[in-house]
Amino acid sequence: MAITGAQFIGSKRSAEGNTTFQGINPVNDEKLTVNFNEATTAELEEAVQLAEGAFTAYANTTTTQRANFLDQIAEEILALGDELLERCHLETALPMGRLTGERGRTMGQLKLFAQVLREGSWVDARIDKAMPERKPFPRADIRHMLRPLGPVAVFGASNFPLAFSVAGGDTASALAAGCPVIVKGHPAHPGTSELVASAIISAAEKSGMPNGVFSMLQGVGHELGGNLVKHPLITAVGFTGSFRGGKALFDIANQRPVPIPVYAEMGSTNPVFILPGALEERANIAEGLASSLTLGVGQFCTNPGLVLMEKGEASKGFVERLKTAVESIEAGTMLTSGIKAAFEKGVGGLASIGVGKVATGPSAGTANAVQAQVFQTNYSALKSNPTLAEEVFGPSSVIVEADAKDEILEAAKKLEGHLTATVHATPQDLEDYQELFSILERKVGRIVINGFPTGVEVGNAMVHGGPFPATTAPATTSVGTNAIKRFARPVSYQDFPQSLLPDALKDSNPEEIWRLVNGAWTNDKI
Amino acid sequence: MAITGAQFIGSKRSAEGNTTFQGINPVNDEKLTVNFNEATTAELEEAVQLAEGAFTAYANTTTTQRANFLDQIAEEILALGDELLERCHLETALPMGRLTGERGRTMGQLKLFAQVLREGSWVDARIDKAMPERKPFPRADIRHMLRPLGPVAVFGASNFPLAFSVAGGDTASALAAGCPVIVKGHPAHPGTSELVASAIISAAEKSGMPNGVFSMLQGVGHELGGNLVKHPLITAVGFTGSFRGGKALFDIANQRPVPIPVYAEMGSTNPVFILPGALEERANIAEGLASSLTLGVGQFCTNPGLVLMEKGEASKGFVERLKTAVESIEAGTMLTSGIKAAFEKGVGGLASIGVGKVATGPSAGTANAVQAQVFQTNYSALKSNPTLAEEVFGPSSVIVEADAKDEILEAAKKLEGHLTATVHATPQDLEDYQELFSILERKVGRIVINGFPTGVEVGNAMVHGGPFPATTAPATTSVGTNAIKRFARPVSYQDFPQSLLPDALKDSNPEEIWRLVNGAWTNDKI
Repeated sequence: MAITGAQFIGSKRSAEGNTTFQGINPVNDEKLTVNFNEATTAELEEAVQLAEGAFTAYANTTTTQRANFLDQIAEEILALGDELLERCHLETALPMGRLTGERGRTMGQLKLFAQVLREGSWVDARIDKAMPERKPFPRADIRHMLRPLGPVAVFGASNFPLAFSVAGGDTASALAAGCPVIVKGHPAHPGTSELVASAIISAAEKSGMPNGVFSMLQGVGHELGGNLVKHPLITAVGFTGSFRGGKALFDIANQRPVPIPVYAEMGSTNPVFILPGALEERANIAEGLASSLTLGVGQFCTNPGLVLMEKGEASKGFVERLKTAVESIEAGTMLTSGIKAAFEKGVGGLASIGVGKVATGPSAGTANAVQAQVFQTNYSALKSNPTLAEEVFGPSSVIVEADAKDEILEAAKKLEGHLTATVHATPQDLEDYQELFSILERKVGRIVINGFPTGVEVGNAMVHGGPFPATTAPATTSVGTNAIKRFARPVSYQDFPQSLLPDALKDSNPEEIWRLVNGAWTNDKI
Repeated sequence: MAITGAQFIGSKRSAEGNTTFQGINPVNDEKLTVNFNEATTAELEEAVQLAEGAFTAYANTTTTQRANFLDQIAEEILALGDELLERCHLETALPMGRLTGERGRTMGQLKLFAQVLREGSWVDARIDKAMPERKPFPRADIRHMLRPLGPVAVFGASNFPLAFSVAGGDTASALAAGCPVIVKGHPAHPGTSELVASAIISAAEKSGMPNGVFSMLQGVGHELGGNLVKHPLITAVGFTGSFRGGKALFDIANQRPVPIPVYAEMGSTNPVFILPGALEERANIAEGLASSLTLGVGQFCTNPGLVLMEKGEASKGFVERLKTAVESIEAGTMLTSGIKAAFEKGVGGLASIGVGKVATGPSAGTANAVQAQVFQTNYSALKSNPTLAEEVFGPSSVIVEADAKDEILEAAKKLEGHLTATVHATPQDLEDYQELFSILERKVGRIVINGFPTGVEVGNAMVHGGPFPATTAPATTSVGTNAIKRFARPVSYQDFPQSLLPDALKDSNPEEIWRLVNGAWTNDKI
């Protein structure tokens, strides 16, 4: 497929803007082929109006129709073949193996939401039958289910150009819920975005979905995104990226005449606790941590940036072993020169507040290669410089040695919200540090025991979320099947005739879904 | 029980403030006995710190312990006997029969949340078992459930001094979720608040709940409430009241360094559509509407303030009959002189924009008695004065006559968010106006067919919520069992040993709750 640089306003290609931008190869900072038009205000308006026009028809498609559409998107992405992977590799410098895996993950997410639709219980169907004889007042027939919100704006992330971008988890879950989607493509991979958008449009056409169910606008400035979030017809926002970007959209959304939810996943430092017994017995945690902190050149939302342990002979040995491991891991190229600059500013900041560097990874010759860096300090320093616990996006981590258990618990209590916390522990450690888990439960979305935070399973039980500032919506997850609920709200239907009820609420239960009927779960008809 | 006018800081009574206020009898605007101390900043701080101190112990009580606590609160409220009802009657002028019913509703809500806890599925337990052999990567064991947020601030409403106040739905659902609650009592019924608070404290002591699980602060100004919402240890807010009050708290909460959710139910105009066949055939809709709009002196969040119908002979007859009905319904006394003044300003505003008054109810001799009022206009006037569709809190309603179906649908499309919409329709009307339901589904939380919006059932399927400006949290309900989910967030537990998992996630499923295990719903053990 030829990349043209035009927007997708539904099925229509549009290139009305006067300004253009290009993708950049992070390996040499050279501009890539194709001039991408920045979307104009008129193009944005047209895309939103088209999405609104498509809403009712799309919201009332059957679950099977929407499931087939999602499956078809996965097929169309696969059908783009190596062209997609190669363009993506040029734009991001991510290795082909990683991109092949990420494509599989992206397709898997789409197919998982198709399964969620076919299984059907996500709508939270609840039926309280009428009780005409009840005293002192009769009870009406009341039925409840989740219904889609309306057009949704999705902001693609730079670090997962497939799985968290144009056809990523936010788009898949919003489309599954029955909401038209308008993507603001990330300017770091515009060609990838266009190819994936073409796959979605192709799937929409083949599946008979209404035109406007999907559009994509490209641009480099903040104005386009801000205007999208301000548009009165946009009803929710999905975002993965920096704290600054996510918080800005959250503020815009809350200041609208009609505020709307912003589901911003803004990353975090993902503290790792290595408890005394595990530190003593399991030296290979050091190698595991080195791999985790350098995975994808550290450009993971769940990258472990803070490691806490009690100081002693074992911690000394651990740091030695971590140093050896980090020094042996090949350097990688970051996604953009901006991300590299921010990383170097971040690690420079750590050095400037007197935190000692204990390991530096190998260098490489590409324009945006960076060296992994490990720092070491003690709990008093962390206490007086809480910025040490803030995210430096990239392959760096700060080891904090504490004098005793009390300091470890105090450090945990002082944490802000993070996506994950990890605890390495022996059975004895778990007993000794039981209090730690009550603390962490309030600080993070996911607690990992004896593993590493990178690697976010896409399943039913995943929470990729957490308290602010990790996200702007702590009651939700952006990965896993529950992500679909972000784009719906409950509606009650009182004394509706059967013919007017949605299928999920009909007595006959044609979709055979699980429902709460008069307080009891059942997948029977009534 | 003697009313003292002091705060409840957990079990402790505290009256540190220098300023006091009194309850007022709306019948004669005379001050009632007892000087209530306004809470000081230090008392607020003490209550919040105590709630935070109680959190971990309370969050980790068993579901049975919390269910028993809720049941006990209901018993303690009943044990207050007539003293509660009589004080409440003095403070609100609401009839004793209504207050007896509202006490029953309040107790019923508490007991319903106790049942929700015993049934257990509200925690959304999800288990994806480990798949160590999966290629290319093994799957970890990941388990998911909802966990309580932390201390919650609840603002009592004036119009339901029992069911939406100190021990109302917000308090019941937050306590059920495992969150300590700090109530800011509504200054229109301070003696009622104190009596109910004493019942909660008594239940907490008898049930062995940690001190601080409940506190109540009294005050008349906005500062106390604002400071409560700003406090860093408060994690969520429940509110029922005016748009102005709810929106102010929402803005404060979003401007905190760490924003928190505000679940504000702010009322609405609850449009009623009387479709042509029903208008022609069912004259007694007029009497039903007259009852609904004057119920509780119109002081219901779901009061029908806007009625739409096609103009013709039938609408003329309807208005005549509504006039007769309204004129025969006895006048009532509003809750406060401030609410009366706002009502009179509101209906005065309608008159001043040239909307014709077609019915006025009887007057009465009490200080805050008001006359029910019905206005009539046409769709063009509504179109040029959208403020006609805004809530006037009290017994008033605006009849809007449309020239044709198109105008009815256009009016529906232009609606803001409301709690409810009601449609009176024959089977033929339902066919002719099918499009209306797709429109209303996006505008309200609950659609009622051939009924009236007042009377909000407390059940599993209720949505008492709706798009902004009806609420600040359209994805939630403040009435019914799903209200509990507002005060919890999901947490994933990865590779946890059985002994460290919450009961809801253990293989043995000791509470026998419904869970999603490897994608299938079951209440078996694993």
